[in-house]
Amino acid sequence: MTDTVISSATKEVVIGFGRPFVMIGERINPTGRKLLAEEMKNGDFSRVVADAIAQVEAGAQMLDVNAGIPLADEPALLVRAIKEVQAVTDVPIAIDSSIVEALEAAIEIYEGKPLINSVTGEEEVLERVLPFVAKHGAAVVAISNDETGISEDPNIRFDVAKKIVNRAADHGIPASDVIVDPLVMPIGAMGTAGRQVFELLGRLRDELKVNTTCGASNVSFGLPNRHHITGTFLAMSIGAGMTSAIMNPLHTEVKTAIMAADVLNGQDENCAAWIQANRDPAEAAAGAGGRRRGGRRRAAAGS
Amino acid sequence: MTDTVISSATKEVVIGFGRPFVMIGERINPTGRKLLAEEMKNGDFSRVVADAIAQVEAGAQMLDVNAGIPLADEPALLVRAIKEVQAVTDVPIAIDSSIVEALEAAIEIYEGKPLINSVTGEEEVLERVLPFVAKHGAAVVAISNDETGISEDPNIRFDVAKKIVNRAADHGIPASDVIVDPLVMPIGAMGTAGRQVFELLGRLRDELKVNTTCGASNVSFGLPNRHHITGTFLAMSIGAGMTSAIMNPLHTEVKTAIMAADVLNGQDENCAAWIQANRDPAEAAAGAGGRRRGGRRRAAAGS
Repeated sequence: MTDTVISSATKEVVIGFGRPFVMIGERINPTGRKLLAEEMKNGDFSRVVADAIAQVEAGAQMLDVNAGIPLADEPALLVRAIKEVQAVTDVPIAIDSSIVEALEAAIEIYEGKPLINSVTGEEEVLERVLPFVAKHGAAVVAISNDETGISEDPNIRFDVAKKIVNRAADHGIPASDVIVDPLVMPIGAMGTAGRQVFELLGRLRDELKVNTTCGASNVSFGLPNRHHITGTFLAMSIGAGMTSAIMNPLHTEVKTAIMAADVLNGQDENCAAWIQANRDPAEAAAGAGGRRRGGRRRAAAGS
Repeated sequence: MTDTVISSATKEVVIGFGRPFVMIGERINPTGRKLLAEEMKNGDFSRVVADAIAQVEAGAQMLDVNAGIPLADEPALLVRAIKEVQAVTDVPIAIDSSIVEALEAAIEIYEGKPLINSVTGEEEVLERVLPFVAKHGAAVVAISNDETGISEDPNIRFDVAKKIVNRAADHGIPASDVIVDPLVMPIGAMGTAGRQVFELLGRLRDELKVNTTCGASNVSFGLPNRHHITGTFLAMSIGAGMTSAIMNPLHTEVKTAIMAADVLNGQDENCAAWIQANRDPAEAAAGAGGRRRGGRRRAAAGS
């Protein structure tokens, strides 16, 4: 099956079917975070660094880095943010911008093979982004909208994704380096948003054979207790074939659902990660002897 | 799509694709509940009655009733349990026994159209159970094992399900009155248990066009924090096409995952049930005025 390899200078992450789901931390993004935007604009990247460390500690295998601040010098800010993050963590990065110049500047200084987030099906964007993705041997997120916007028809979204995959091939980028984002709408505004994505995921896996990702939080926008909706959405998406997502690993409900989905998908061997994460804290503190005792306690509690 | 109607004397429940998932409360079952078994054997059904009321209050649309106690007069106990439950709730019942005589005695006194739980693919069981299911116009759970046991090959389990559906038709029972249980193994013992069920659910929906159910708790047997595993399993199963399950509605993690899956499957119109269940308690107490204020609070908290 299709494997997409993303790397930093020292670490590789593989996104693929029949592998554990890859969590890409979403936090380093000034959109809707006034304080972070203000700090970044003023050259203070301490919160960026702290967010990077916290997300990796919470289990993110990759980090998305976005520096989209209106009226700021986005290419310079994105370059700085990526340097700061690469200085403190070794996880690969999704370089995230809607400004092509920012992507281009960041890919130049990135150490490793990044994931470029993103290219759309718009002609102008395709022909500006794909050449430097190809030149640097990077991977790229393909967002399934084009000049006509985001279609509510999953078949049209599939066709846009297919067009991007084909165009990437024309530029020498293999399908294994294209990760499709089927686009996730808020379920509170559009009741079919979930089913559309689940259906698209199946076709993207079976027909295009590409890996997939999404901005997961969008699905629960405006709903109460929203992290449960996001987590359940991701579990159902994993069941339908999604292989990575840009999400917040600090939200326990989301991370727990992903870990459980990995177990149920047969991607957590012997349930080792699940058992480790859900050990009795007293037992974890007690070490090996405690583990043996804990084994019995768990069996009793679980029955 | 296929609708299965189950009823009590005064209430109908419809299990079907494109409908909210149906939760069948599992609690009234003396297996592994020594105290309940002891009480039932001694003619004390107060806990059965309390479990019935609690599960319906927690959202169960149906109740499974089982009286399987070794060396007890199971037909008499099952009849009594069903009478007690029907006296205090109006939800339809899944009459649950592996003893054919118990099913036969219970169906005689049941008020409404019950779900008989269950028939297997074993010749002797098929030919004893299907005639009285047909005679009473009941629905039946078809468990996909036969004389050779439970196959680890999902294709064989599909074939057994198909055989039961065909045999039911021979007895005049329509496929819409057969609910297939694909059989759920503990994921801790068999890493493929989840994927097998997800795959089977798709085939049962698309090829046999039958509704489905399962004993959900089994999937998480022996694991820590097991209710999260069960809930996530059910959400993924709902995504794959499962339409009902025998589960514990009192386990918040399980019920929350099912409600979220209904939202994401487009089966909770305007997310009304989700919003109602997740309202800020202060706001719920304040009534209509509070709802308006709460609307803004929710929006702020959700952003």
